[in-house]
Amino acid sequence: MGLTLTEKILRDHMVEGESVKGQEIGIRIDQTLTQDATGTMAYLEFEAMGVPRVKTEKSVAYIDHNTLQSGFENADDHRFIGSVCKKHGIYFSRPGNGICHQVHLERFGIPGKTLIGSDSHTPTGGGLGMIAMGAGGMDVAVAMGGGTYYITYPKIVKVELTGKLNPWVAAKDVILEVLRILSVKGGVGKVIEYCGEGVKSLSVPERATITNMGAELGATTSIFPSDEITREFLRAQDREADYKPLSADADAEYDEIIEINLSELEPMAACPHSPDNVKKISELAGMKIDQVCIGSCTNSSLLDMLKVAYILDGKTVDPGVSLSIAPGSKQVLNMIAENGALSKMIDAGARILESACGPCIGMGQSPNSGGISLRTFNRNFEGRSGTKDGQVYLVSPEVAAVSAIAGVMTDPRSLGDMPEFKLPEVFTINDNMVVPPIEEEKMDTVEVLRGPNIKPFPVSEPLLDEIDAKCSLKVGDNITTDHIMPAGAKILPLRSNIPKISEYCFAVCDEEFPKRALDLKRSIIIGGSNYGQGSSREHAALAPLYLGVKAVLTKSFARIHMANLINAGILPMTFANEADYDKVDQMDDLYIANVREQVKNSDIIKITDKTKGFEFEAKLDLSERQRAMLLAGGLLNYTKENA
Amino acid sequence: MGLTLTEKILRDHMVEGESVKGQEIGIRIDQTLTQDATGTMAYLEFEAMGVPRVKTEKSVAYIDHNTLQSGFENADDHRFIGSVCKKHGIYFSRPGNGICHQVHLERFGIPGKTLIGSDSHTPTGGGLGMIAMGAGGMDVAVAMGGGTYYITYPKIVKVELTGKLNPWVAAKDVILEVLRILSVKGGVGKVIEYCGEGVKSLSVPERATITNMGAELGATTSIFPSDEITREFLRAQDREADYKPLSADADAEYDEIIEINLSELEPMAACPHSPDNVKKISELAGMKIDQVCIGSCTNSSLLDMLKVAYILDGKTVDPGVSLSIAPGSKQVLNMIAENGALSKMIDAGARILESACGPCIGMGQSPNSGGISLRTFNRNFEGRSGTKDGQVYLVSPEVAAVSAIAGVMTDPRSLGDMPEFKLPEVFTINDNMVVPPIEEEKMDTVEVLRGPNIKPFPVSEPLLDEIDAKCSLKVGDNITTDHIMPAGAKILPLRSNIPKISEYCFAVCDEEFPKRALDLKRSIIIGGSNYGQGSSREHAALAPLYLGVKAVLTKSFARIHMANLINAGILPMTFANEADYDKVDQMDDLYIANVREQVKNSDIIKITDKTKGFEFEAKLDLSERQRAMLLAGGLLNYTKENA
Repeated sequence: MGLTLTEKILRDHMVEGESVKGQEIGIRIDQTLTQDATGTMAYLEFEAMGVPRVKTEKSVAYIDHNTLQSGFENADDHRFIGSVCKKHGIYFSRPGNGICHQVHLERFGIPGKTLIGSDSHTPTGGGLGMIAMGAGGMDVAVAMGGGTYYITYPKIVKVELTGKLNPWVAAKDVILEVLRILSVKGGVGKVIEYCGEGVKSLSVPERATITNMGAELGATTSIFPSDEITREFLRAQDREADYKPLSADADAEYDEIIEINLSELEPMAACPHSPDNVKKISELAGMKIDQVCIGSCTNSSLLDMLKVAYILDGKTVDPGVSLSIAPGSKQVLNMIAENGALSKMIDAGARILESACGPCIGMGQSPNSGGISLRTFNRNFEGRSGTKDGQVYLVSPEVAAVSAIAGVMTDPRSLGDMPEFKLPEVFTINDNMVVPPIEEEKMDTVEVLRGPNIKPFPVSEPLLDEIDAKCSLKVGDNITTDHIMPAGAKILPLRSNIPKISEYCFAVCDEEFPKRALDLKRSIIIGGSNYGQGSSREHAALAPLYLGVKAVLTKSFARIHMANLINAGILPMTFANEADYDKVDQMDDLYIANVREQVKNSDIIKITDKTKGFEFEAKLDLSERQRAMLLAGGLLNYTKENA
Repeated sequence: MGLTLTEKILRDHMVEGESVKGQEIGIRIDQTLTQDATGTMAYLEFEAMGVPRVKTEKSVAYIDHNTLQSGFENADDHRFIGSVCKKHGIYFSRPGNGICHQVHLERFGIPGKTLIGSDSHTPTGGGLGMIAMGAGGMDVAVAMGGGTYYITYPKIVKVELTGKLNPWVAAKDVILEVLRILSVKGGVGKVIEYCGEGVKSLSVPERATITNMGAELGATTSIFPSDEITREFLRAQDREADYKPLSADADAEYDEIIEINLSELEPMAACPHSPDNVKKISELAGMKIDQVCIGSCTNSSLLDMLKVAYILDGKTVDPGVSLSIAPGSKQVLNMIAENGALSKMIDAGARILESACGPCIGMGQSPNSGGISLRTFNRNFEGRSGTKDGQVYLVSPEVAAVSAIAGVMTDPRSLGDMPEFKLPEVFTINDNMVVPPIEEEKMDTVEVLRGPNIKPFPVSEPLLDEIDAKCSLKVGDNITTDHIMPAGAKILPLRSNIPKISEYCFAVCDEEFPKRALDLKRSIIIGGSNYGQGSSREHAALAPLYLGVKAVLTKSFARIHMANLINAGILPMTFANEADYDKVDQMDDLYIANVREQVKNSDIIKITDKTKGFEFEAKLDLSERQRAMLLAGGLLNYTKENA
């Protein structure tokens, strides 16, 4: 029986476990990346492990999140990361060099390699035929130290692309269609593998848009084959030597098959407040808009920018609309500055922002109260824009640009004929903003620079013998990591300061939670299904750890967040009978006896609700390794114990 | 006897008073400008006056301060301002169009006209031969309504420029030299008029750099003649019709004469934490630096950018330095995008920021803890960068760029020969980001858009008959408006919300002050000399008003701030005997009897320190109009009373 592309790469890298779907496997990681919001903590963890030099083939630290720098914390973090990198063998992409996923795709990604990144959109690398996954910062630290990365051997979904996109229909519309079909929960435990004739008409940046936003499916990752188009892209990046052809066997078997005829797709938008709330632009056309933001790791490639410039050329942004554009990398910005595209954008009235994540993570450009904002980004969770009642629609750059001119949601097909937009045969290459590490023999000469906002990693204790704690918070379905640990300009600078950032934990749901949890000293959180969807931020586990949360009990978990909870030594359980969710209330007294014994040996945990006077069961879905980690009190304790 | 240029323009515009130095005169204002941080309040005040359309020749509202937009407040403010402008006859420069002073110089300033702006760097227009002055937002509102603007008829200082700047010595060095000579108090009550052969070698943007930073002298304004160089600049901006030659009479008499031989100047820097703490770069060379920021209304012209691009061309920013560049206007950004200069900056690793005030007002790019930051800006007050212990040096773009490459403070003369940098014969002109107002007959169709952060103007009460109040705060010399009402990313968005912003009043000096003052209900502030230097922000008066401050007693006041206090109905007094300053302590009980009577008829106020049991005298330096305003409880009450 043939193999899928995913299986080929996983088997090539497997160091523990077997190729059995649903079981945990350990794989070797070739490359890692971090961004600065999660990276500061990841490098504090790496330092705590005491490994002198990274053992990966290539590890890169990017500065792209906290680039507004409203306060000393960000610049201190950047300097800390830069100095740690120089010392320990990590490449350092300086602020201004661009968004991690865009730059990594351009300059470092290699077909067939494994990559984990402390950012949930790391699957962007799947556009180059990598197995590229979002992970907790601690997982990245362990991988940099040469440790194994553990995942559940995934189910593989084949997305068979046929036909060819019509003019002004975009890669963004492909992933919006997949989200419409599968929903934000549809990818959990799965890798999405793109195949078929339609693949041949998609450039690497377009493929990367699709794999990038595959993160919103809850998928482990998404991947495209590596083919002649991949070779051309790498050649234009002066990296043809990194090319290798990769594809699934013709007789590969998949767990699920979806067919999408590209010719039948229309421009679409994900409506507030979920990336799977997808409608056709033709249904939304004419809606007055207030803001348009173009950029983010999803849609900031040279190709995207060329299309936007073409649409804006000679026009003026509608007086009722603020249009911002943040090109994805120094390379992209430099090339559009050279070829006249940038000038067209400026002339039309676009606000040119630094090449960074910016508004996508709530770092500036918050829309007006109740404002309707069209964004080429990947997430439109409530409040993520920095404006509580902001209404964010996720669209392609084509929809964004044409709507910015019109002042209302507009179908770009109204533009008529589309010229052919081609990637250049040679990109402008200048890696001067990537600082290589110092030679290993000189590493002792590098002083690591620590600012006052960089606080040590919070201490976790070994799993208790009994948990006798109140439910400090009960929340509903689809709680995102933005609910648990909000981002935004005020909070992101605190990512290396867990005591301080914890004051904002669950602030969106219940501002009293942090104080209540601290007062209770030990507590349990109850959640609905798909708890912890969204970004990979481990702070969504570290803040609860600091606040004394001992266990989280839900209907189901998002993959990365559950792994982060285990890494932090917080017990993740799911209701054996979902109906019990309705019976337990916030502030109920919950009791679990013999916790260590049960976690060691059982898939079932017996819980008593002392307030309501009934007993119910929760399920554990844990590997042996995860059980050992929980008993030790998290990955860092576990790693030290096993050192 | 001949006239100075200043006197010619003032006399042309005088509607009240006489040409007697030191006496108050009323002048007609031809143009006004606002920026968004002060503008929201200015337009709330304009609305409160009930005048349907502005009566100036041209009034322009710029959005350049709150452009990061970390929260809904800024976008709401921008929309409020845009809609007020459209309705009431004001031109609206949209976010992204650039810094008010840079754009006003390019597109609107006219030799011989009067301009007031709710920004202390409005004297930039003096580079075009305007009388351009910073003023409180309320003054701007009154001027827009056709009201007279009052100033003290100034002393005139002649700065005779001889010689010619050597290569790599800049206009910035001229104003640094003037600051070195005169100090930050040296311009109080004066207009600085530039004359002499040296003027002919300075382009309009260079002249504007000098008049712009003249604000740091405490001067009423600074002015250059309007000559053939002015004509060329206006012609290149397609505005030759606005040109008119203007200069002082050959036999004009001045109150003070300073001679500066441009040939003898060297590159200089204003060292922390005052713009007059000036040293030669040759004395500072070799000092390790952490950050370089190029931009601001002082140094963001096309000429500045061309020089920076030349220096950066083919180089890489030192790995220890973060270099950001914010071009001053859409026109500048567009032209450097077209002519290749921008590409050189990007290639060297510069971080390109939106065309706006940005880091100059603490809006992002805060340096690291204790970081040394070279900035081409105009102010280096402690903490203004957003980093409490940041060390800011104010330098020319030439010093900034060459130091960014070297990683240490570097004299640009080390570059050797300098090519000739010339302004273009024709600028790229596209005013599409300036929205003209609607026709007057259609103004009722415009709805003014108000967000929830836009709170009404605080109510001031008529002057009390007696003031019996504690001293809620005692501060020292040279208190700036940044001490009284800090700016920065967190606070600026609250400029239209006085109750909220008041929580930060004097936070730099004493975090307890706002609560203490509110608890006391009524109180008095004691200050040293040059109290209220710095920006024109009327919030430095409105926050104390809201907090119940009834009087401010100092050794001396900065001009704009004192006017703002009077506008707010707060009594400004100076110690008759400066030695009394040392006798009065914070929390002393102070008593003033017959306040109304004394303010109406006397230049002396008798104050009793009940705590210490002694009586002392304070001086009033007020015009009849100011006395009437104080009795009414501020300008708004006064304007209503006289309507």
